[in-house]
Amino acid sequence: MGFRIGQGVLDLAAHGLGAVFASPSLNPFLALGRSAWEDVLDRIDERVKGGADLVPLELATAHLPFTVGDYVDFYSSLEHATNLGRLFRPDADPLLENWRQLPVGYHGRGGTVIASGASVLRPCGQAKGPEDDSPRFGPSRKLDFELEIGFVVGVGSRRGNPVLGATFRDHVFGIVLVNDWSARDIQAWEYQPLGPFLGKSFATSISAWVTPLGLLESRFVPAPIQEPEPLPYLRVAGDWGLDVDLEVELSGNVVSRTNSRGLYWTMPQQLVHATVNGASLQTGDLFASGTISGSRSGSEGSLIELTWNGAHPIRLGDGSTRTFLEDGDEVVLRGRAGEVELGEVRGTILPARSLG
Amino acid sequence: MGFRIGQGVLDLAAHGLGAVFASPSLNPFLALGRSAWEDVLDRIDERVKGGADLVPLELATAHLPFTVGDYVDFYSSLEHATNLGRLFRPDADPLLENWRQLPVGYHGRGGTVIASGASVLRPCGQAKGPEDDSPRFGPSRKLDFELEIGFVVGVGSRRGNPVLGATFRDHVFGIVLVNDWSARDIQAWEYQPLGPFLGKSFATSISAWVTPLGLLESRFVPAPIQEPEPLPYLRVAGDWGLDVDLEVELSGNVVSRTNSRGLYWTMPQQLVHATVNGASLQTGDLFASGTISGSRSGSEGSLIELTWNGAHPIRLGDGSTRTFLEDGDEVVLRGRAGEVELGEVRGTILPARSLG
Repeated sequence: MGFRIGQGVLDLAAHGLGAVFASPSLNPFLALGRSAWEDVLDRIDERVKGGADLVPLELATAHLPFTVGDYVDFYSSLEHATNLGRLFRPDADPLLENWRQLPVGYHGRGGTVIASGASVLRPCGQAKGPEDDSPRFGPSRKLDFELEIGFVVGVGSRRGNPVLGATFRDHVFGIVLVNDWSARDIQAWEYQPLGPFLGKSFATSISAWVTPLGLLESRFVPAPIQEPEPLPYLRVAGDWGLDVDLEVELSGNVVSRTNSRGLYWTMPQQLVHATVNGASLQTGDLFASGTISGSRSGSEGSLIELTWNGAHPIRLGDGSTRTFLEDGDEVVLRGRAGEVELGEVRGTILPARSLG
Repeated sequence: MGFRIGQGVLDLAAHGLGAVFASPSLNPFLALGRSAWEDVLDRIDERVKGGADLVPLELATAHLPFTVGDYVDFYSSLEHATNLGRLFRPDADPLLENWRQLPVGYHGRGGTVIASGASVLRPCGQAKGPEDDSPRFGPSRKLDFELEIGFVVGVGSRRGNPVLGATFRDHVFGIVLVNDWSARDIQAWEYQPLGPFLGKSFATSISAWVTPLGLLESRFVPAPIQEPEPLPYLRVAGDWGLDVDLEVELSGNVVSRTNSRGLYWTMPQQLVHATVNGASLQTGDLFASGTISGSRSGSEGSLIELTWNGAHPIRLGDGSTRTFLEDGDEVVLRGRAGEVELGEVRGTILPARSLG
């Protein structure tokens, strides 16, 4: 288990930072809680200032950094929710009545969260477009990425004990970048009335690095004004917008640039909401923001928005165009919070396998 | 870890059935696979015929029998889906166009699956009825049970390898009874467009006993005819209706009696569908049927159906009436497959806690 510093990695177990880092998973460390997290960050700082040897980044092996418990995905970008509403429900108000009252979210599949670098097979599934008489089965024709940030629970909570906003930092260790791969044709056909299922559950990629909240303190800024004001249980004191510059690279071309500070619902609001019914937390639970889209053209965090469901293909540097992802495409998500570079999320699309 | 025989329990570790049963969780045994499962059933049979001592059932402690991985909940009862469609979307076709083409399902919260006997706190949450000008926060006023059967994955699968129907018994160890507690007012307000979230995630109770498929072979019967015929990937040879008599007792009164053989979508179809996109399985994954309702009055598996969303209260033996669950109510689900009694699911409603 290592701590990344620029292009080098500090081997935490080898440098005496605790036997807990001999584990192949961060979970035992995550469960120790905030004072242990802060203590380790201080001691890492000492080691680095003392000139500790670093392993070159290219020699470190990327793994899934923690064992994922439950995975929840929110829908916290006003711009993304509005865009998707227009595309999926063209005859209705794009933003449903509940959207500004609570952070809409759903459970994804924790068991298919994978580390940056793992390839993604094009999923097969059932779809039926408006032009089809009956559903068809086959490889998805609308494979997409979603640019998201997720937070990782270190210290769990017991059933029946909602987590209050003021204790967010006692439960949450840090953040990861998330690519919530999505098959839009499968999703559009299956998602009513119980939400996304197979259109999302084939793979969700996260960065191999978890960035501790302790390294991001200077990046918390005021979040957007919420109108109407949310119910009292969702009011969390402090500045919880997170100023992280984000970009999406598609086969060598930057196709989107945005920033997470524009998200309407903040991380503490998401956590308060997800536990206000008494749901417990466990070490390794992952809560993702939902696709992060800005309001400017070129700041949308998914292809379905960037190409308006394929109606306006984007052009790449080699002259080719894309509506959705093609086999062989590589997607890289990157994030930077001032001096702190978040671990990238990289994945290449492999052709669908036939059944059998 | 024990094996239940009527009103007694065989202590598996003490009777030399394997060190794997010294674990507090069935997961290590589940991961061993079908030949080990069958071998242990044979050896249990020998021990019982040999007159092995049994622990009286009332002296055994009920635990969560396995560590739950991902929890998926389907919507496989035609009668239930039709009833809920009428109640939640009165102005539209009750059954959406996709329902007869694929087993609709979604991911629930694996971390809040609890064992029979654990109490359930009335959840708080946000709701807004058609009569409300704005959303309110408070204890759920429409707390409900859902009668379900779930199957438990023993042997996992790797990402990119869909599970075929013919290998269902190689992956699935057995079944549990499931009470998927539901707060209907929270659910109704939150569930569009991404599906149920806090209305379900506060608790899901399962039986403390997992009934091996190997003990249910004689109970598989033809399932209902499916019209239209599903796509080829969903056609599974054999009889997969499961003939289990089910009942729901509410504070001492049997309020529903039904049978799981009437479920439209079968367990192998559910598993094939859930993995056809390449999603992997892991030991302990739980797949529940969705509420099991029959077509006769008194065969509905939830109060929202039995009381038609509270419009027609049911009367209990003590003269009181119920629309939804009241604090202090105890719900017991029971199942019987011929000679085989499935473990019950018992839970009592405790009053909501205030926040803070």
